[in-house]
Amino acid sequence: MRQFEEFEEKTIARKNIFKGHVIEVVVDDVLLPDGKTATRELVLHKGAVGIIPITNEGKILLVKQFRKPLEKVILEIPAGKIDPGEETMPEKTARRELEEETGFQADTWTYVSSMYLSPGFSNEKMYMYYAEKLARVENPLAQDDDEVLELYELTLQEAKAEIEKGTICDSKTLYAIQYWELQLVK
Amino acid sequence: MRQFEEFEEKTIARKNIFKGHVIEVVVDDVLLPDGKTATRELVLHKGAVGIIPITNEGKILLVKQFRKPLEKVILEIPAGKIDPGEETMPEKTARRELEEETGFQADTWTYVSSMYLSPGFSNEKMYMYYAEKLARVENPLAQDDDEVLELYELTLQEAKAEIEKGTICDSKTLYAIQYWELQLVK
Repeated sequence: MRQFEEFEEKTIARKNIFKGHVIEVVVDDVLLPDGKTATRELVLHKGAVGIIPITNEGKILLVKQFRKPLEKVILEIPAGKIDPGEETMPEKTARRELEEETGFQADTWTYVSSMYLSPGFSNEKMYMYYAEKLARVENPLAQDDDEVLELYELTLQEAKAEIEKGTICDSKTLYAIQYWELQLVK
Repeated sequence: MRQFEEFEEKTIARKNIFKGHVIEVVVDDVLLPDGKTATRELVLHKGAVGIIPITNEGKILLVKQFRKPLEKVILEIPAGKIDPGEETMPEKTARRELEEETGFQADTWTYVSSMYLSPGFSNEKMYMYYAEKLARVENPLAQDDDEVLELYELTLQEAKAEIEKGTICDSKTLYAIQYWELQLVK
């Protein structure tokens, strides 16, 4: 079994490329374990949450939205970026995002796992929660004003049909639906 | 149900920020459906494949590698970028990457799904395959010369222990292990 030193890529130099609202881009020159050098293009991200919300009727709550990188409208679990000040309490972000995006609150929150979404070039980490005992809020937190969302409640079979059609097509939502199915079959 | 036009964000202007070997970064000014404008930070990517390789002993084949964006060593399913010329045949990429990263070939290939890894800012799409009937190749394709990999074969229980420890921690691998578990419990 190799030791950490036999894997580690030491940063020799960093070039700052871009600092935006969502991402920061840098290029590192690295020293490989064998003494060669290489460059690494990195997208730095402040982290996010995803919520697997199951209604009292046993359906999953999904949001339909336009995704500019894909130039299409897709169905996803509610999710969102961790705001400044929320870094140490992702469940707070999850509760906020569920209410903002769906108008629902949940009574039961279960931490599922955290996951890096694209570790080859990005440090974006998503904390995933399973939310049950949902109730619609009378005056929910407002949506972000640059988001247009439409709410859907699907059975597992309906969700699988949307996967077949390609409307459900992102890794966090595909993971969420598998996780839900495993809860049902176990 | 809203129509596409009620979601679509039309590009008004695009600023090219960075063009690297792995990613390209642009910032779009967009016109929202309500007439307001917003900016979208986009990371463009040529796509990738992931392989869920199950050995004849019923174990999953994983590779350990250093991931610069995370500054740590993690365990992942074999995966890799689609090379120029492979765009229309991701299974070819999957066969190549499995051999390069593990030294194994597979007899049975099943397409699982494709997934966008982080659709909020990136168009990176991963094609996922389930690979069975594995055999070690005598003279396998060489690894990329800037990659240091170590091979592991884990049972489902061992894989779950690595998830608990945080060594398995990326969305494609977490998805892959759930997919495998669903094959076993069904």
